[in-house]
Amino acid sequence: MTVLQKDRFRDHPIVGIIDWTLRGIGQVVFQNNPISGAVILGAIFYNSWIYGIACLVGTIISTLTALLFKADKGMIKDGLFGFNGALIAIALVAYTSPNFTTANPPNGYLWLYIVLCAAFASIITPAFGALLGPHKVPGLTMPFVLATWFVLAALLQFTTIDVSNALKPTSPSDFTGPRPDYTWITWFHGISMGIAEIFFQDNWVTGIVILIGIAINTRIGAAMALMGSTLAVATAVFYGAHDAAIRDGLFGYNAALTAMALGGTFFVLNLPGFIYTVIGVLVTARVWASLGIFLEPSGMPVLTSAFVFVTWLMLLAKIGFPSLIPVAPADATTPEENLKRYRSAQNR
Amino acid sequence: MTVLQKDRFRDHPIVGIIDWTLRGIGQVVFQNNPISGAVILGAIFYNSWIYGIACLVGTIISTLTALLFKADKGMIKDGLFGFNGALIAIALVAYTSPNFTTANPPNGYLWLYIVLCAAFASIITPAFGALLGPHKVPGLTMPFVLATWFVLAALLQFTTIDVSNALKPTSPSDFTGPRPDYTWITWFHGISMGIAEIFFQDNWVTGIVILIGIAINTRIGAAMALMGSTLAVATAVFYGAHDAAIRDGLFGYNAALTAMALGGTFFVLNLPGFIYTVIGVLVTARVWASLGIFLEPSGMPVLTSAFVFVTWLMLLAKIGFPSLIPVAPADATTPEENLKRYRSAQNR
Amino acid sequence: MTVLQKDRFRDHPIVGIIDWTLRGIGQVVFQNNPISGAVILGAIFYNSWIYGIACLVGTIISTLTALLFKADKGMIKDGLFGFNGALIAIALVAYTSPNFTTANPPNGYLWLYIVLCAAFASIITPAFGALLGPHKVPGLTMPFVLATWFVLAALLQFTTIDVSNALKPTSPSDFTGPRPDYTWITWFHGISMGIAEIFFQDNWVTGIVILIGIAINTRIGAAMALMGSTLAVATAVFYGAHDAAIRDGLFGYNAALTAMALGGTFFVLNLPGFIYTVIGVLVTARVWASLGIFLEPSGMPVLTSAFVFVTWLMLLAKIGFPSLIPVAPADATTPEENLKRYRSAQNR
Repeated sequence: MTVLQKDRFRDHPIVGIIDWTLRGIGQVVFQNNPISGAVILGAIFYNSWIYGIACLVGTIISTLTALLFKADKGMIKDGLFGFNGALIAIALVAYTSPNFTTANPPNGYLWLYIVLCAAFASIITPAFGALLGPHKVPGLTMPFVLATWFVLAALLQFTTIDVSNALKPTSPSDFTGPRPDYTWITWFHGISMGIAEIFFQDNWVTGIVILIGIAINTRIGAAMALMGSTLAVATAVFYGAHDAAIRDGLFGYNAALTAMALGGTFFVLNLPGFIYTVIGVLVTARVWASLGIFLEPSGMPVLTSAFVFVTWLMLLAKIGFPSLIPVAPADATTPEENLKRYRSAQNR
Repeated sequence: MTVLQKDRFRDHPIVGIIDWTLRGIGQVVFQNNPISGAVILGAIFYNSWIYGIACLVGTIISTLTALLFKADKGMIKDGLFGFNGALIAIALVAYTSPNFTTANPPNGYLWLYIVLCAAFASIITPAFGALLGPHKVPGLTMPFVLATWFVLAALLQFTTIDVSNALKPTSPSDFTGPRPDYTWITWFHGISMGIAEIFFQDNWVTGIVILIGIAINTRIGAAMALMGSTLAVATAVFYGAHDAAIRDGLFGYNAALTAMALGGTFFVLNLPGFIYTVIGVLVTARVWASLGIFLEPSGMPVLTSAFVFVTWLMLLAKIGFPSLIPVAPADATTPEENLKRYRSAQNR
Repeated sequence: MTVLQKDRFRDHPIVGIIDWTLRGIGQVVFQNNPISGAVILGAIFYNSWIYGIACLVGTIISTLTALLFKADKGMIKDGLFGFNGALIAIALVAYTSPNFTTANPPNGYLWLYIVLCAAFASIITPAFGALLGPHKVPGLTMPFVLATWFVLAALLQFTTIDVSNALKPTSPSDFTGPRPDYTWITWFHGISMGIAEIFFQDNWVTGIVILIGIAINTRIGAAMALMGSTLAVATAVFYGAHDAAIRDGLFGYNAALTAMALGGTFFVLNLPGFIYTVIGVLVTARVWASLGIFLEPSGMPVLTSAFVFVTWLMLLAKIGFPSLIPVAPADATTPEENLKRYRSAQNR
């Protein structure tokens, strides 16, 4: 059996941990490929070395925690214990930095906090496997979302770590008046930052490099991410959302993830599957906006919860719709391979 | 095999879709009967042609969506894909109308929004089948509740559609002072509007006609709905709630649904089943009031969530109580038939 | 077969109900032992006869409700239907008393409310058995938490029962400035009241007597409770929380329950199990603080939800970590017996 070029360090005794960590970063966007992970990590470092280090530390802590309690080695090597740690570490730094865009260096208290919480995000990962595994539905980034909601707000009660203005509680108000004047910046920044915001990065170059990192492993996946972010911006422009929210990529990051998950990864990308994905993307953009209103009084962020809720529901619903061809999480690789495997099974 | 009079258009190639749509409207109150559905639709049109059209459009879109993705034909024909669409369409019109009672005509943006969201409510219906089916517990109106929460609040972020004052966020405050002076209007409007509010209708005549629509298919079901709304008003009067909230039927609509679900539909109506139903109804009235407080800071409505949560928990609990005789969702028809089937099984 | 001294009244036809009630009180802290229950009840009466009576009434109503619907006699006798009723009754009195510490006598309206709600808490107990039983995860105090959230806030809408200032809605704000000056009182009251607050008791003597009640049945369990409360206070002091919140035992009560659940009761207490427990405890203290922020705008209390969420997730995750030795809820007795049974199974 030949080992693919991209998999040559997966079972290496010494540098394996580096391979698993890079895959963990890639798995945030469903890419079980260390090169994709390395490119994405580079894109984050390009925007902010602080976020880059946080991402690395979070992924490594999560991976080590899984090793400590002797979790399944295959899952660890595929980066499936690392990606929630990557996100929670970046999130904790982002929401405690006066400068959200480039981040401020965490103090010692916050580093300790990050270590514990990345370990916790890793620990609760199999819980979603237990609940959703029988339905052949993956846990997605729910360990990250739940763990972050569970620990982030606590920082408001501690003097040693201050939170940023991004967590300011407000009372929801209706956005009325004439539709804002959008420009090409709305579209260009909205779409590219929609990719970057998956990793909390306010940087359009980072967004484009992340997209390249995805495309290294799957062209269809990258196309789906782009479509997701684009349709979300189109929705927001059509209905007249705040220009700043669109330009910051806030409408797009959940929609991009939903597009990748439904469009080829956990369903074979046939015509009904494509229509299903488009519906999921359009709804996800609305759900992001709705959950933001629900959370406004407490000041907490939506994170990737809109993506998780919509994707979970639309994956669970597969038992009702025989025109969709589901791919079990254990078999899901890239949209290209899923499609090829399905076609060859059809021809047999 | 003879076909019942009420079922003669169920398998008709052309007018079948009309039959399924009317059943879909009936299924909001558990009635798989196109005549019940037609009477209820008439009751809504009597109050407001705008709500009537919204109800029709929502039900049709949901039904067509299920057909598009090739869902189970039997479920579609029984209206089980239509009822969540009926409710979400009415809800979206209600909470965007300056005049909640008779509704204002939606603009084009809102119509498109309704179409997408009714499709989504239909799509997530099988998800609850996947989760609750093994427990023989139905999804009830949760697809409607969740889909509405997921998309309604987003309207606050868009300039092209404004929301009504009914979604105004407030900070909860304790209602104190002397008990309000209630009159016969409190009771009469409270009970009849409690039925009408299941469909968001502020009209006591509509409530009575809906009750007649239910009674056409099941006398016991109608009696249960009446009992549910009455006990909820009694609870509110006994404990001293706002007179206006009682008169608007707000205490009753969840309780009426719980009464129908537990009282004969998903349990055989024996004595322990009746006591169980009364407890469920009394609790549901309180849960409506509690969830309203939880949601006040975000301004979002309770919808039928109190009914769903209480009924789900009390149906799931059946495994612990052998004095209750559960009826599986697939077998549940009317309380009368459920009772008859149980008795004949006993006598055999 | 010999009957243990502590079990001699378990099957008694007349005084059995007293035995089951005392076990129900003990089961709040996982102790299936009437003597432990009696000591804990005494500890509550020492602080306030009103809370003592509420605790008794709640446990008895819950137990009688289970008898009415013919629930499993073994579970009833083990107090598994009583403990949620004990807590909801105390909670309803606590949050309607101007004096939270020693409570004010409930009026007739509130007593009726308590009876219905304790019955409801009992009724929904098997629902969690249905959902979590297949995963061999217990429902813990979720019936209490959910039932209390479902009915407590409703009191704000009724004139006949007023709620206390403890339910005041506020907008979350960040606690900044220098770290408070803590004293030995912070530590001593924080740790002992952390045990007492499991039963809503603001009394350090009560906390110590409850600890003794636990120790009568299990030394390890008592040590775990003490460790849980201590680590929570240590976390709060390290990160600089409000001195008053620490001294009131608010950080500790969820953490103490998590420590008992994970530390020996539902996992065999080996070294990985101990590390796992410490992580769970440290996280629980943070989750209590976070959920408090989420609930602040509605004014509702966290109750024991932090303990339930963290413990559920960490128990569900057991399928992923072979270094942990789970104990099924039906087999879980005391940490000592769980350990002994595991060792003798190893030696065979």
